[in-house]
Amino acid sequence: GGGLGDPEVSDSHPLAGFRLQAVLKESARDKVIFLHGKVDGDSQEPQDTVVILERVPFQADAVSGLLSQRPPVTLQLKNDIYSVYHLTPPPALNEIKTTVICPATEKHIKKYLRQDLFLIHETGEDYKAVTLPFIEAQSFSIQWVYNILEKKAEADRIEYENPDPEHGFILIPDFKWNQKQVEDLYLIAICHPRGIKSLRDLTSDHLPLLRNILIEGQDAILKRYGFHGNKLRIYLHYQPSYYHLHVHFTALGHDAPGISVERAHLLHDVIQNIESDPRYYQIRTLTYALRADEALLAKFREVGKC
Amino acid sequence: GGGLGDPEVSDSHPLAGFRLQAVLKESARDKVIFLHGKVDGDSQEPQDTVVILERVPFQADAVSGLLSQRPPVTLQLKNDIYSVYHLTPPPALNEIKTTVICPATEKHIKKYLRQDLFLIHETGEDYKAVTLPFIEAQSFSIQWVYNILEKKAEADRIEYENPDPEHGFILIPDFKWNQKQVEDLYLIAICHPRGIKSLRDLTSDHLPLLRNILIEGQDAILKRYGFHGNKLRIYLHYQPSYYHLHVHFTALGHDAPGISVERAHLLHDVIQNIESDPRYYQIRTLTYALRADEALLAKFREVGKC
Repeated sequence: GGGLGDPEVSDSHPLAGFRLQAVLKESARDKVIFLHGKVDGDSQEPQDTVVILERVPFQADAVSGLLSQRPPVTLQLKNDIYSVYHLTPPPALNEIKTTVICPATEKHIKKYLRQDLFLIHETGEDYKAVTLPFIEAQSFSIQWVYNILEKKAEADRIEYENPDPEHGFILIPDFKWNQKQVEDLYLIAICHPRGIKSLRDLTSDHLPLLRNILIEGQDAILKRYGFHGNKLRIYLHYQPSYYHLHVHFTALGHDAPGISVERAHLLHDVIQNIESDPRYYQIRTLTYALRADEALLAKFREVGKC
Repeated sequence: GGGLGDPEVSDSHPLAGFRLQAVLKESARDKVIFLHGKVDGDSQEPQDTVVILERVPFQADAVSGLLSQRPPVTLQLKNDIYSVYHLTPPPALNEIKTTVICPATEKHIKKYLRQDLFLIHETGEDYKAVTLPFIEAQSFSIQWVYNILEKKAEADRIEYENPDPEHGFILIPDFKWNQKQVEDLYLIAICHPRGIKSLRDLTSDHLPLLRNILIEGQDAILKRYGFHGNKLRIYLHYQPSYYHLHVHFTALGHDAPGISVERAHLLHDVIQNIESDPRYYQIRTLTYALRADEALLAKFREVGKC
């Protein structure tokens, strides 16, 4: 770009000479795509650029007006009372929000790079042979969790505590929640006893702890926020993001990250499963997704499990 | 519509005379809007219609081509290396997927109306006393399902069939998927046997059917789309949206609606649970969310359960 030809036209367009290097990530649900490209910038060298394209939300009055004016439609399929069309709207209803990061560093590019996901069906044996040794070798620090439990950090954020060292817990807002509206309510119960790494360690010994978290957690949220237990999703993650037992409380209407069936386990179901079989979580196959770059996935591949 | 003017033109447009009655629901994240309107149908009376507009996902090669051709852009803001533009693309990249339900009943309109959610813990006894009588009294038509199974509709969309009347099924793309990119892959397996209403009816008698769906469904998707089973989320809904057993296949990286822990049940887990206890789904408490306006919620309230 720039150069000798017509610098004004060339430099005026932020994407002049765009060449796609890679699709970093895309979401069909969100209608967004993240691209890595080279563009001809002001400098001599082509510049690395991240381009984020996102379709814009509908505005009710604009689309209502459009529909009343017989827009061009093409029938795709029809079955009984249901039909699907492709509708071609006028350009004004079709802007694409375009974010350009230029020049982009390696770090920007990596930030937006999507990793493939792979499903693991982890048997009880797999846990003992692959996952547990992996967790123990990691020694991922959970000092920040102990700081909370010992009131050395975030003590002013504690919403409720049952101080029993064996069957107690602390309830604290999740960082993702700003506590300004209950629509996206998100709290975490962190158990006082140490050494319960995850769902896999739970047996009937832990039923009093789990029931305390379920009952007292709901009570505390009702008292503090007037938000009833029958509007709460209460669940554990497997794999969790850190290996000290904790339980998530989110508003049922909030589409929080990590609520999907291959990661979340309802506390109500966990209690029921242990009641019916105290060794349920030691013997059951548990299914979860791992990203392509996760070290645990490499361990499963070493033993031919994925 | 119809009438005296130009009946051919008038009747040819599915949205002729569209007047907005209400915005039922919208999602800025998903770029979708659900409208209730009146249209001039073939009959004398205007007809209630639900119109669902959804922007389509980006296709990498199409947008990459677009960006390299200096599309019209308008600068919105600039800060250091970050800038935001509005980009106006050509009409071909801008179709809006338009689903029309006409004539729509009260029930269809309610289905898409945004409502508060309440969690139900349905015991096996609750199912027999409350839910089953409710389902049987509803007689919600599933003629469209039988049309597919009998090849009276959508026969050209069938991706795979195991024709066994007891242990067979048909695999078909979900309406939500346009089949253009595998990122949001979404197919449905509809079982051939009739009368299996939901998860609650499943016993060890159905293990051969469930295993066929699991194994053959994955095989068919691998052969047709080159998409491996370890990248698929395979699950049932409880409550389902219609009471004829069906199984969802979605891409693991696709954040599809209805994958949350309070609605989805992994087929892998369902098979495992029935193997360990043939009456698991008759006796277990199953947790799910109901919208404030759902008739089933009113039934649970009548018996003091919510």
